[in-house]
Amino acid sequence: MSASWGDNLRISIFGESHASHVGLVIDGLSPGKKIDFEKILKEMHRRAPGKNSLSTSRKEEDYPEIISGLFEGYTTGAPLTLIIKNKDFRSKDYSQLKDIMRPGHADYTANIKYQGYNDYRGGGHFSGRLTAPLVFAGALAKQFLEDEGIYIGAHILSVKDIRDKTFSQESLTREKFEELKKSSLALLDKDKEEVIKDLILKTKRQGDSLGGIVECAAIGVEPGLGEPFFDSVESKISSLVFSIGGVKGIEFGSGFEMSKMKASQANDSMYFNEKGLVKTRSNNNGGINGGISNGMPIVFKAAIKPTPSIAIKQDTINIKTGQNTSLELKGRHDPIIVLRVLPVLEAVMAIALLDLLKSKKF
Amino acid sequence: MSASWGDNLRISIFGESHASHVGLVIDGLSPGKKIDFEKILKEMHRRAPGKNSLSTSRKEEDYPEIISGLFEGYTTGAPLTLIIKNKDFRSKDYSQLKDIMRPGHADYTANIKYQGYNDYRGGGHFSGRLTAPLVFAGALAKQFLEDEGIYIGAHILSVKDIRDKTFSQESLTREKFEELKKSSLALLDKDKEEVIKDLILKTKRQGDSLGGIVECAAIGVEPGLGEPFFDSVESKISSLVFSIGGVKGIEFGSGFEMSKMKASQANDSMYFNEKGLVKTRSNNNGGINGGISNGMPIVFKAAIKPTPSIAIKQDTINIKTGQNTSLELKGRHDPIIVLRVLPVLEAVMAIALLDLLKSKKF
Amino acid sequence: MSASWGDNLRISIFGESHASHVGLVIDGLSPGKKIDFEKILKEMHRRAPGKNSLSTSRKEEDYPEIISGLFEGYTTGAPLTLIIKNKDFRSKDYSQLKDIMRPGHADYTANIKYQGYNDYRGGGHFSGRLTAPLVFAGALAKQFLEDEGIYIGAHILSVKDIRDKTFSQESLTREKFEELKKSSLALLDKDKEEVIKDLILKTKRQGDSLGGIVECAAIGVEPGLGEPFFDSVESKISSLVFSIGGVKGIEFGSGFEMSKMKASQANDSMYFNEKGLVKTRSNNNGGINGGISNGMPIVFKAAIKPTPSIAIKQDTINIKTGQNTSLELKGRHDPIIVLRVLPVLEAVMAIALLDLLKSKKF
Amino acid sequence: MSASWGDNLRISIFGESHASHVGLVIDGLSPGKKIDFEKILKEMHRRAPGKNSLSTSRKEEDYPEIISGLFEGYTTGAPLTLIIKNKDFRSKDYSQLKDIMRPGHADYTANIKYQGYNDYRGGGHFSGRLTAPLVFAGALAKQFLEDEGIYIGAHILSVKDIRDKTFSQESLTREKFEELKKSSLALLDKDKEEVIKDLILKTKRQGDSLGGIVECAAIGVEPGLGEPFFDSVESKISSLVFSIGGVKGIEFGSGFEMSKMKASQANDSMYFNEKGLVKTRSNNNGGINGGISNGMPIVFKAAIKPTPSIAIKQDTINIKTGQNTSLELKGRHDPIIVLRVLPVLEAVMAIALLDLLKSKKF
Repeated sequence: MSASWGDNLRISIFGESHASHVGLVIDGLSPGKKIDFEKILKEMHRRAPGKNSLSTSRKEEDYPEIISGLFEGYTTGAPLTLIIKNKDFRSKDYSQLKDIMRPGHADYTANIKYQGYNDYRGGGHFSGRLTAPLVFAGALAKQFLEDEGIYIGAHILSVKDIRDKTFSQESLTREKFEELKKSSLALLDKDKEEVIKDLILKTKRQGDSLGGIVECAAIGVEPGLGEPFFDSVESKISSLVFSIGGVKGIEFGSGFEMSKMKASQANDSMYFNEKGLVKTRSNNNGGINGGISNGMPIVFKAAIKPTPSIAIKQDTINIKTGQNTSLELKGRHDPIIVLRVLPVLEAVMAIALLDLLKSKKF
Repeated sequence: MSASWGDNLRISIFGESHASHVGLVIDGLSPGKKIDFEKILKEMHRRAPGKNSLSTSRKEEDYPEIISGLFEGYTTGAPLTLIIKNKDFRSKDYSQLKDIMRPGHADYTANIKYQGYNDYRGGGHFSGRLTAPLVFAGALAKQFLEDEGIYIGAHILSVKDIRDKTFSQESLTREKFEELKKSSLALLDKDKEEVIKDLILKTKRQGDSLGGIVECAAIGVEPGLGEPFFDSVESKISSLVFSIGGVKGIEFGSGFEMSKMKASQANDSMYFNEKGLVKTRSNNNGGINGGISNGMPIVFKAAIKPTPSIAIKQDTINIKTGQNTSLELKGRHDPIIVLRVLPVLEAVMAIALLDLLKSKKF
Repeated sequence: MSASWGDNLRISIFGESHASHVGLVIDGLSPGKKIDFEKILKEMHRRAPGKNSLSTSRKEEDYPEIISGLFEGYTTGAPLTLIIKNKDFRSKDYSQLKDIMRPGHADYTANIKYQGYNDYRGGGHFSGRLTAPLVFAGALAKQFLEDEGIYIGAHILSVKDIRDKTFSQESLTREKFEELKKSSLALLDKDKEEVIKDLILKTKRQGDSLGGIVECAAIGVEPGLGEPFFDSVESKISSLVFSIGGVKGIEFGSGFEMSKMKASQANDSMYFNEKGLVKTRSNNNGGINGGISNGMPIVFKAAIKPTPSIAIKQDTINIKTGQNTSLELKGRHDPIIVLRVLPVLEAVMAIALLDLLKSKKF
Repeated sequence: MSASWGDNLRISIFGESHASHVGLVIDGLSPGKKIDFEKILKEMHRRAPGKNSLSTSRKEEDYPEIISGLFEGYTTGAPLTLIIKNKDFRSKDYSQLKDIMRPGHADYTANIKYQGYNDYRGGGHFSGRLTAPLVFAGALAKQFLEDEGIYIGAHILSVKDIRDKTFSQESLTREKFEELKKSSLALLDKDKEEVIKDLILKTKRQGDSLGGIVECAAIGVEPGLGEPFFDSVESKISSLVFSIGGVKGIEFGSGFEMSKMKASQANDSMYFNEKGLVKTRSNNNGGINGGISNGMPIVFKAAIKPTPSIAIKQDTINIKTGQNTSLELKGRHDPIIVLRVLPVLEAVMAIALLDLLKSKKF
């Protein structure tokens, strides 16, 4: 099955882009946590479209409504349910897409899997809109993690082939994470901002779209989380990350680069620091050894493909007629989803870490 | 928890390198399948060490003993249990490693997680030896998959920075897969064989080790397997792949390269072929859209870090004394595990696909 | 964790009596099933309170709103989500119950488990109101089961010590099931109707309440569903049945009576009937051997305790003051919940059987 | 699927009566527990057959071999695996039973479910022999529970219609539990011993068999374990109990009797005792309210049907020929399994409670 994830924290996601709601149920939250609703709205705003010229002009009012599990502002310990009303219906935009499969999208695979009964409007259950509840759940999870001194941040590591700096010891701080959250373009190297904006706007004018890489990190994670089989920290995080549309790769620490190193370079040598804490000089392993956190920052990079919806003519099929055809998409599309996926990646990392933390505490 | 994986096929792994056995239980196998034991032994032999100068000279006799779930040569449908006796005990080799943590290994994280009670000998539960039962399970899964016309193959895509060709339409065939299985070094571009062997032997003499990338593919997979949330084909495969020691990254299709493409290039345009089957002209999405198989070959690449065990002196810690120290490992070690991990990656891909297939059939 | 159940069908329940909604998510429903909404409302009406003098006069408008997973009247295959708005708030009724624990209820255990943060109003997450979404899910499940020729029915086997007949071959028919659903008091022996009604009304006047036993059966279940370990048909059904408030016992077939038989009497002797189908002469095993359905009707009986809410003075504790105290409950309470639990038991049996059916089909 | 159970403790059972081994994997045990092996053997001896004239004369040497998860006598925290070699092969005894289905047994349902490929010898995977690993796991679980002050005991409540006393406050003590474990017939009312033994021996001579009821209890369980949905204490325990062959009913506290009470009698009134602990005057709810433990002893009764294997001629079917036939079983059979099931019920209660305890501790 599918729509349910987790061991000691369990999220069950639901909804379609053009059904009445999207939402999720979160089970396993500790009782007695006062929820900071404003913080949640801020996180959801980061994902929301229509903020500026770099994303689609569609407006979504992602107002989260909590319909269970909260009493007088505190979590009750019973399942917490979120629903978000879908508002911006323009079903006519999608009517031609019932039979003509958009390349790069899940139209064809959904049609096969659900035998043609899937709600195809706006991508239905496969819509990026489903990431709104994930961001909500992540915002909640972050509040619990912060009680344990764990903070999560992310930045755009690359857009197409324009590359930002990677996280360093200096930039892996709570302050930098806050600063990144506030910037319109979350970059460590601010000099790249203009060239990236220009590229996005130029690509938008071409009716095309861009991909990129996001680097995401958690600091303050104690050693000992995760399992050798089959709930490694990497397994847990990647199983959620690969549920986000558009992600095609993930690497931890130095990842693919590490395959080019010799062990004498790759092995992170260990030492006790002046406070008696175990540290490693480098962090090629991304804070994880043998599937288990080692106390260093947990770092991953995720590759995001270019938004499949483009205005350029593409070859494709009509599933009803069985004919080859072509397609030119109209409407408002994201020239790049990397910016909006960034808070989603933070969110699922938070969900994964909270589950791991809860699984450890016995 | 950990040691159990899967929805409609479930494997439960157990064992430590120097305990009496390693093994696993496989639940959910259909009854009535005649097991080809010789094929299983061949697959296990591919993973076994001590075959030539490119791997450790340790000999492991991985003779798999099936103690339940098989009756008169056929699967019964009840849980099938495999045990493999551990034979080559040299516990003295490891006695110094009780307190001195090997960099790059799970010694420290295991010590923390299990509060010092882990069986540290030879890496214990974290030992590469645990991949022997996985290869067994994969060999079984392959026999079921072949009944459905699904075949799995893999090759070494790179060793350090020496790179093989990637899979193409021509090399994604059952015959090529068989050929790769038989070669001592599974390469598509045979011209790279000598230079890779030389590099491995040279690195071995230096007491150092190498990493690399493996490309793994499945052909014959019908469209419609997998789920949007949270059991995407990518999630299922990656959750198993990241349980294999040394894997630090995974990408599907063009993966990280796709983040540098524009959608007009990245989108795999679709067409009905002459037989009326839906195909895509390129396969940047690696056979998966929206988490669901699209009928094209499923392809992933996994980054393997260099074997952490090296003869070169490294800085590290003594967990008992709380002192910084250094370590020079003796003994027989793999100069590269990429070759031996290759059949393990095939195996877990087979396990993941069989589970997905079983989860679909209703 | 808790609020999620099932293997190939998964339900995730949520809500509190006085929060804004109760509801559930059902994942794993096959796509393309046209839902008969009227049938669902009929089932929900059977459970609803306020219908006559035999139950509480509280009115609940259990109007089920489907907010995902349904498109143009057909299931999409994506998670189907139901929400039911809570309307009849009388929170003042419950204000005294924040600290005074009602005997027989979950007030104290909820307070301990959720550290005082549980929504105590009206029983919160423990309220019988949570069975409304279960009845909805069961009504859906029944529509899928009926496509497979499986029908479910139930009757009141006893109220206090007044006993109805048990199901016999003659009464285990689809027609009888329909008849029972329509009766105000679901009895096989209509002669018991008056005496039972009198007893209920008399007990109501005394401010006390009654328990009873429900017998529930499914016909048309093919042999071969269920598992020896740990998903026996009995395990699956009982794990759901014991989530219904007030159930304190369950037995399959002849159950506890069977412990008094000798095997020569208890063993259900087998034969091929004239159509070549395997049948048993008796059905002491309730259609299940070794945890697996044998093709005979599946029959269980569930013991329901008397509604704990009574108007009679009871000794109890004040959890805040740490003092012993006493309690006299005001308000509208069910003099017996057996009648209203009956459709809930049918519902969870339907859910369990649909999950078992889906788990078998591969 | 089936053979795996639990959330924060996970057991995976395997084996067939006449395959080489039976056993299980236990995952989730805390590291660092010194195992008292002698205690485990004692528990297993309680279940073993061949001890006296009241059970089958078959001798099983249930010597448990731990092949993983134990290091220098302590649990490592990695999965602990137990295997027990099957020794007493008399396959010829069972050869006639390949096609002739024993009434009351799982022969027919196994044949259907596994399409004729099940290992039919001695009941195969359905054999009572599979309870040996459960008793082992339970013995382990008990050692962990005792560290938390939790003790489990059981007695024979009835054999056919001869009834023992039920547990009372006086008999719910650790000392009484120990005493019961040592008796050849675990009865509270010793006066019933002779009459029960006589009945068993008489029934044995008739070639028939008997059923009965076991009452099982746990003392020292803290309040707050379990969940409202769907992991109530009752659900957890019953899902395991119904995996034991021969169990056809379970009730908690006063169970079915409670359905005959009025609430004024059934509700367990609450008070603070002199130590300020919350207690109830009666324990009709068996220590559980709303699915959650309330701090009182947890008590359940399980109904065991008479052993289906009898020497008396029975009507049945030949599945191969499609003919009705009859069957007279030869060989050594238990005249009653109640005595041997008793330690199994204790064991699964221990497993369920340890899982619940682990699930609570966060």
